[in-house]
Amino acid sequence: MEKNWYSSPLSLRDIQITDAFWKGEMELVRREVLPYQWAALNDEVEGAAPSFCMRNFKVAGKLNQEKREKGDAFVEPAYTFRGFEALPEDPEHLEDKFYGFVFQDSDFSKWIEAVGYSLTQHPDEELERIADGAIDLVCAAQQEDGYLDTYYIINGRDKTFSNLRDHHELYCFGHLTEGAVAYYQATGKDKLLNAVRRFADYIGNYFGSEEGKCKGYPGHEIAEMALVRLYEVTKEERYLTLARFFVDERGKRPYYFDSEQHPDMQRRGQKEELRYQYNQAHLPVREQDEAVGHAVRAVYLYSGMADVARLTGDEALYGACEKLWNSIVNEKMYVTGGIGGTHIGEAFSFPYDLPNDTAYAETCASIGLVFFARRMLEIRPDARYANVMERALYNGVLSGMALDGKSFFYVNPLEVNPEACRRDERKFHVKPVRQKWFGCACCPPNLARLLSSIGSYAYTESEDTLFVHLYMGGILSKKVQGQDVDVCVESGFPWDGNVKIKVRAQNTSFRLALRLPDWCSGYEASGLEDAQTEERDGYLYVKKEWQEEDCIELSFPMEVKLIAANPRVREDVGKVAVTRGPIVYCLEEADNGKDLHMLSLGAGSKPTVVEEKICGIPAKTIEMPGYRREAKEMAGLYHTWRADHKKVVGLRFIPYYMWANRSENEMQVWTRME
Amino acid sequence: MEKNWYSSPLSLRDIQITDAFWKGEMELVRREVLPYQWAALNDEVEGAAPSFCMRNFKVAGKLNQEKREKGDAFVEPAYTFRGFEALPEDPEHLEDKFYGFVFQDSDFSKWIEAVGYSLTQHPDEELERIADGAIDLVCAAQQEDGYLDTYYIINGRDKTFSNLRDHHELYCFGHLTEGAVAYYQATGKDKLLNAVRRFADYIGNYFGSEEGKCKGYPGHEIAEMALVRLYEVTKEERYLTLARFFVDERGKRPYYFDSEQHPDMQRRGQKEELRYQYNQAHLPVREQDEAVGHAVRAVYLYSGMADVARLTGDEALYGACEKLWNSIVNEKMYVTGGIGGTHIGEAFSFPYDLPNDTAYAETCASIGLVFFARRMLEIRPDARYANVMERALYNGVLSGMALDGKSFFYVNPLEVNPEACRRDERKFHVKPVRQKWFGCACCPPNLARLLSSIGSYAYTESEDTLFVHLYMGGILSKKVQGQDVDVCVESGFPWDGNVKIKVRAQNTSFRLALRLPDWCSGYEASGLEDAQTEERDGYLYVKKEWQEEDCIELSFPMEVKLIAANPRVREDVGKVAVTRGPIVYCLEEADNGKDLHMLSLGAGSKPTVVEEKICGIPAKTIEMPGYRREAKEMAGLYHTWRADHKKVVGLRFIPYYMWANRSENEMQVWTRME
Repeated sequence: MEKNWYSSPLSLRDIQITDAFWKGEMELVRREVLPYQWAALNDEVEGAAPSFCMRNFKVAGKLNQEKREKGDAFVEPAYTFRGFEALPEDPEHLEDKFYGFVFQDSDFSKWIEAVGYSLTQHPDEELERIADGAIDLVCAAQQEDGYLDTYYIINGRDKTFSNLRDHHELYCFGHLTEGAVAYYQATGKDKLLNAVRRFADYIGNYFGSEEGKCKGYPGHEIAEMALVRLYEVTKEERYLTLARFFVDERGKRPYYFDSEQHPDMQRRGQKEELRYQYNQAHLPVREQDEAVGHAVRAVYLYSGMADVARLTGDEALYGACEKLWNSIVNEKMYVTGGIGGTHIGEAFSFPYDLPNDTAYAETCASIGLVFFARRMLEIRPDARYANVMERALYNGVLSGMALDGKSFFYVNPLEVNPEACRRDERKFHVKPVRQKWFGCACCPPNLARLLSSIGSYAYTESEDTLFVHLYMGGILSKKVQGQDVDVCVESGFPWDGNVKIKVRAQNTSFRLALRLPDWCSGYEASGLEDAQTEERDGYLYVKKEWQEEDCIELSFPMEVKLIAANPRVREDVGKVAVTRGPIVYCLEEADNGKDLHMLSLGAGSKPTVVEEKICGIPAKTIEMPGYRREAKEMAGLYHTWRADHKKVVGLRFIPYYMWANRSENEMQVWTRME
Repeated sequence: MEKNWYSSPLSLRDIQITDAFWKGEMELVRREVLPYQWAALNDEVEGAAPSFCMRNFKVAGKLNQEKREKGDAFVEPAYTFRGFEALPEDPEHLEDKFYGFVFQDSDFSKWIEAVGYSLTQHPDEELERIADGAIDLVCAAQQEDGYLDTYYIINGRDKTFSNLRDHHELYCFGHLTEGAVAYYQATGKDKLLNAVRRFADYIGNYFGSEEGKCKGYPGHEIAEMALVRLYEVTKEERYLTLARFFVDERGKRPYYFDSEQHPDMQRRGQKEELRYQYNQAHLPVREQDEAVGHAVRAVYLYSGMADVARLTGDEALYGACEKLWNSIVNEKMYVTGGIGGTHIGEAFSFPYDLPNDTAYAETCASIGLVFFARRMLEIRPDARYANVMERALYNGVLSGMALDGKSFFYVNPLEVNPEACRRDERKFHVKPVRQKWFGCACCPPNLARLLSSIGSYAYTESEDTLFVHLYMGGILSKKVQGQDVDVCVESGFPWDGNVKIKVRAQNTSFRLALRLPDWCSGYEASGLEDAQTEERDGYLYVKKEWQEEDCIELSFPMEVKLIAANPRVREDVGKVAVTRGPIVYCLEEADNGKDLHMLSLGAGSKPTVVEEKICGIPAKTIEMPGYRREAKEMAGLYHTWRADHKKVVGLRFIPYYMWANRSENEMQVWTRME
């Protein structure tokens, strides 16, 4: 690994995102999601299932009015492995017990992380005050020894770390750490960070390679990358060591999870080969070469692996990351950047199995793919990673949130027939309309933290290079050779491909690396006259002594393209997806009538790009002539085939991420070619 | 209903099937299936899961060596609603308990029924002796009061009829009745028939419309049509009354099944509307107009409804049968005559939801559709019913059995990718190769009883008409106006459409009604010179005074046809199925290589019909030029669409029912049209 390539994200305090497109998304998060989420954490959302999150912290910290009952038997939460919601019988009469999912603490953590990012882009004293109060409450629950997970504090510390596979204890720790680091980096306040360090030290005393320490690792990964962040902010080597331990230990035989008492495994006699694929713990991570199991867990693990590989210069680990990356993007990724072909285990299916109507493609999994992509970019700036990051962001991630920021998809299918969602149990996981909030609140807060920190995905820097991976408007301030440099980016993305990069510097020499998107074959550039330029791995490297008013202009042609899938993808054979620039388009019933599968495109169809608004949001739609099967074929089930039963119709494609904002209806990404 | 149309099957003793095609299938049953089945009933098949069927009868009849333990608590069988196999921990040390599925008795019943039919076509003293011995054993288990179900005899009579929804008690009674009637009709021996009458009387004393009697009905239907058969052979009105009671009572509110203690329903609070759709008990049967729930149960019920409607002249009930028939054939039937679009509940899915690769299309369901079709034909001779019967028989039924009669499909998908069957949990129910035998042995014995009695589906008779619904070679002997008439049919079906019907009579006047198949638009006929003829409802009626050597020749052109599905069927849009006469064809990997979904047909392709053998069995295959997507598209997941990436290849189609006889491989019925 060429270490001189390594880059890292800029501090969000040094980036101000001004982009019309992304600023709009960030504002939705700030104005809609964060307040809603805070209310949800406090069980104050009318009609919504209570979260119990902050309540659990109060109970754990004995901050609630009533005295906690003593000597309770260990209470299993009303929680099952597949993730059902926990509700007390009578919400009016809650006892001093833990309620909700076993991972309920993480709701707070995701919220505080998003709040931290948001404060860097939009200071807000009132929000910061609320956040500080919440942190006080959380810290009050921390135990003398540093332990801080309300589920076990309330239910009995003797069971601590007894069910790593299912009980998300290290997952909660990971999220808490990410939240604490983000809040510290945003505000400089270290109360939560210090609490997390104590918790991390507690964990580090319990787990590790040293004799006598527990050889377990998280059932749901995230602690790996969280510990790396903690290391990067504290410079304490032991956190990196612990992260590496979790990565290294994973999947070794005999399986650690076998040493836990899992009734389901006992029923199955623990005989199944590679039985922890769901948790990516079936093989040592360096031997894994196919992305398998729960998709969110997978990409969280791979992100942590990439982090550890970068910081330890571990070639073998990086090699595994590369193989797993290729497994995803060459065999297991939807054209939208969605991942997870099956709802069974919310998991990757086998290679090329990418069904459109039963897709899982969880919002969180696409978010995790973005995490993984940026970490691969940090190791090696190759546009392969950034192209996928962009694909996921503009499509499979953004589709998770309604245009008004008030409802959310967990599952992002590429084809929806609402009748099937209601009547076919195999599609019950697919919702034809976004939902208000979820009992298991992972996707909305995950969106909140990603969108609020979007700038850290657009830009990374190495010693001598500023990388622009995504084109979004913003102002970056950086120190180069002790001098202040401002870089101001203006972009029409994703609706047009024009980008202006203005640099304000004083004869400062450094490189800009500008990504050349894979969706256009050429580009135009100006302002490069007195620069050294080089194209490599999908980036245009521009080196010069930058002056006061330097400006580079780039223009990436955004043509409408018909995309075909590898013919091994059975579901897409003979079909095309319509794209323009980074945006994947879809047909929706609202524009094209019912029975979208009866529509098709011809080879010579000329597209027209239309500038308009959808639900008040500016967008570009695509109109194209196509065909519709005619109704005279409708009687009976089977008849002799005839070629001529179709009529010419106008088709209207809208951006995929904007679907399901105009009431429940059919949607389809892949359309048949005649 | 015009009662003068009513017809009924000829006695199998008056039909000798000589047809090359069907005789071959019947011989497979006689030589392979019946002996194997008998061994299975007696747990004598090496390597196969024991059935315990005959053993349970012995335990119930106290014919086993050991003395049955007394005072046992009621033992729930290791049986779950979805049908898992029950096995004792240590097969070497069986106790005097009931083992196996709760419906294990029915294995014997299906066997004895098939034996009865087989004896009419092929007398076999040894087989009859074994059958008589088995009947002795079964009858020995009958209780003083007539009760005869080993599960409750062994486990405790106090629980009798306590779980009609799940425990298949009346289902076992139904099968026993069908077996007894068949054996009596074949051999004239009435020992089992008399036992069944006593059991039926016991049931009739327990259930009924009279005050004080139980208002329950079968969870798994079949007793309805079985009781009608018992009525028809005994002429005892009370059996028809009981059949009608079961039909009438079904689906009334409050639901009878709610009065039973079902833990799953209690969990769900019994609140779900129309909650017994699975059992077709969600609405009174006369109000049902959509085929729903478990497909086998459904067509068994509809068959019983048709029987009762015919015998009681019940117009409303017949109307419901018509609606349910139309619901199946216009919205819910595969082109193979398979029914059951989802494995969840082995059930009908919603209208037009006919996925090919996750189909259930259970062999037994297609068999049940044949039952239903013949009963509709008995009420009204309309080729609509016979066309579907023929479609199911030659395709979705026969596909259930290997060409050597030694292995069987439960599930008959229309598209199979073996990798998906192994790696995708959503397709675990789909097997790429036929299985030896099943713990839940419904399909093989059901095939045995249908194929052994195939003549009763080909021919029915009314007062003045002999109906020929299916063309298969055979000799029929009937009395018309006191005179002996022989009808000899010769047919090249399903490989050619030539039929000869020779009548040997002495100036006897009656009508022949000859079905005009829907898969050809015209036909040629000779020998009709001095006859009155009329075409009506898909039959050619031929009336004349038949002489010693009359012969009618019919020729139905069998052209290769490309069939399209109603475009509402999402899975089939843009695709065709290849058919010829009654046979549906498929592509198999053995002939066409891997990745069958990459193959396609062009509009002008000319088919060639080839006469050959598959696994030694004569057949006609179809060769046609087509296309295959080229391999250069194989790198990466997505690329810009291009029209030209296909090459011309020769495609070979074989009869669908013959697939999976040449080792595990891909198969596909619906092929894309370019």
